[in-house]
Amino acid sequence: MSALQFQLFSTDNNSAARTGRITTDHGEINTPVFMPVGTSGSVKAVAQQQLNADIRAQIILGNTYHLFLRPGIDVLEAAGGLHNFINWNKPLLTDSGGYQVFSLAANRKINEEGVMFQNHINGTKHLFTPEKVMDIQRSIGADIIMAFDECPPADCNYDYAFNSMELTHRWLDRCFDYFKTTNDKYGFTQNLFPIVQGGVFHNLRKISCEYITTKDATGNAIGGLSVGEPEEVMYEVCQLCCENLPDEKPRYLMGVGTPWNILECISIGVDMFDCVLPTRNGRNAMLFTTKGVINIDNKKWETDFSPIDDGLTCEYSQYYNKAYLRHLLKAGELLGLTIASIHNLAFYEWLVQNARDHINRGDFITWKNEINPVLKTRL
Amino acid sequence: MSALQFQLFSTDNNSAARTGRITTDHGEINTPVFMPVGTSGSVKAVAQQQLNADIRAQIILGNTYHLFLRPGIDVLEAAGGLHNFINWNKPLLTDSGGYQVFSLAANRKINEEGVMFQNHINGTKHLFTPEKVMDIQRSIGADIIMAFDECPPADCNYDYAFNSMELTHRWLDRCFDYFKTTNDKYGFTQNLFPIVQGGVFHNLRKISCEYITTKDATGNAIGGLSVGEPEEVMYEVCQLCCENLPDEKPRYLMGVGTPWNILECISIGVDMFDCVLPTRNGRNAMLFTTKGVINIDNKKWETDFSPIDDGLTCEYSQYYNKAYLRHLLKAGELLGLTIASIHNLAFYEWLVQNARDHINRGDFITWKNEINPVLKTRL
Repeated sequence: MSALQFQLFSTDNNSAARTGRITTDHGEINTPVFMPVGTSGSVKAVAQQQLNADIRAQIILGNTYHLFLRPGIDVLEAAGGLHNFINWNKPLLTDSGGYQVFSLAANRKINEEGVMFQNHINGTKHLFTPEKVMDIQRSIGADIIMAFDECPPADCNYDYAFNSMELTHRWLDRCFDYFKTTNDKYGFTQNLFPIVQGGVFHNLRKISCEYITTKDATGNAIGGLSVGEPEEVMYEVCQLCCENLPDEKPRYLMGVGTPWNILECISIGVDMFDCVLPTRNGRNAMLFTTKGVINIDNKKWETDFSPIDDGLTCEYSQYYNKAYLRHLLKAGELLGLTIASIHNLAFYEWLVQNARDHINRGDFITWKNEINPVLKTRL
Repeated sequence: MSALQFQLFSTDNNSAARTGRITTDHGEINTPVFMPVGTSGSVKAVAQQQLNADIRAQIILGNTYHLFLRPGIDVLEAAGGLHNFINWNKPLLTDSGGYQVFSLAANRKINEEGVMFQNHINGTKHLFTPEKVMDIQRSIGADIIMAFDECPPADCNYDYAFNSMELTHRWLDRCFDYFKTTNDKYGFTQNLFPIVQGGVFHNLRKISCEYITTKDATGNAIGGLSVGEPEEVMYEVCQLCCENLPDEKPRYLMGVGTPWNILECISIGVDMFDCVLPTRNGRNAMLFTTKGVINIDNKKWETDFSPIDDGLTCEYSQYYNKAYLRHLLKAGELLGLTIASIHNLAFYEWLVQNARDHINRGDFITWKNEINPVLKTRL
């Protein structure tokens, strides 16, 4: 059992895009990779069988905040960790819970020690500290775990962003110091990734990149983006981060984004992505397809019996027709949520698979510039 | 393309149980059979892939009332019928909509012509007549379609039951007369089944059996049971109906029931069953297993990591553990609804598969008496 390794394959001549392979104790991940989000131990409306066979997900996420509340750490430890609990044998990644504490919980009180909050389900009070979050993620047992950070709002001023970044860095030290004193619980190696913060301020982002690089972690994450700032700002800040993070480690851009966001950020040098967009938007009738964006709720699809997307090999995208999926969603049938989620995730997998192929072939930018307007088309 | 055929295989020496095979233009159905209910063109929370591979359903139901309202007859006709619309290539059966009109719709007015009602979704007014319901079921295009009947309440008096039965018989004449003047729409043969009514009154049921037998249909249904009457009364009336319906035609008991109801009614001579119980109860945390009934909501399952039911070959029942399914349902995760529905339907398929095997082997009653107390056990 050994720490995460990252092997670079191809680097694009016309951009910072690259392909590579992450190796964990639960198997390999070809990068760039999109990681479906399995909030409470389930990618919403999708079965593990479908993640494997139909979406061909290489790794999925769990959310520390949600799993801590339900089923709770005692249950996950009794199960021998999240892999066993949900019966998922490929790599897992957990976030630190910080983002959910700031976006979901009530009565947050943040101080040097950590964050006190009331959970959004039944209001019980909890304190998350860097050490506590390391303990929780040890018990959940993901292959990749994240440092505890503060994610400041997109519109915060320089002073707020600076102080928040400094706090995140002090918490980062505590995360790594404490993590090193604790052991893997389930016989495989867990890897701790630090997170760059610094809001939209270039000099802060640069400082943060340099600081987190000193941890010499097996991978580095970029947080605090796609939280409301303009898309161009997101790309600029992301590019600056990629340029200031080591090439030989995978770069994980947290919580991003649309298909075109993902292609742009691949060209900037990002290797790993996660986002709730494909599943959440799917449940709300928005489909990403190889021919453009579909609002399946529109009456124009009422008698369109063509496959959801014949550009994908995913069985669900081929087997079910647009009119049927529209009917299922309008009638409130759960199968509609499942089909839309599987389709959108299979599309994201198609997207990064194509990105990998074109980077390896050397024509990534040409392909990206051709496909982006197609993918954005409103059908 | 030809009318439904029914071949009897084995008849039990110690009961009226029998095995057989129904042949339709969409394939064969081994009886006794349990038919999952696909209300609005979807077995709730279950994909067609899962019905085929994991549940091994031989035939599924559609509800005329629901399909008439959504997606509507125009859409179904444009699709070339329900088989095409939902991409289901095995046999389909539709009910007449009568039951839903009486249980779901508002402001019902029943008279000789038919039933006027306001639908439960947006309140628009519709008139269902025997002729109209034949037209709708022609357009939906199921292999087996049902006559339009009135389903009287379980506690109605003799006069009500008598008048209702007489009305149902007059409607039955109109259904068959009109059906014969209309054509199959999609290149395969549709079969119209009449329905026995008569409440809990033996002489009425006997009259009704004799009346519907005169239609010489390819199969006969028993309606108006399991609507609130005591279980023993249901068995008595069902037995009387089976004894008064021809042996050489399949007998379909509508809307029944629990696993033990099904085994009892198989011993009485029923060949076909449908019920929302496995899916509806599954969504409400009640699991039927080969070892007994589980309320997965109970705290006792919180750290039980054994498979949901290792007595089934169904992959979902084996792959997922009880504690995980409990967590999913408590957390409101859609996957929980899917797993519970697939498991319960796979259990029902296991039940009728075993019934068929034991009837063929000649030890059905011995097996039934052994297994019934096990299945009823509250775990």
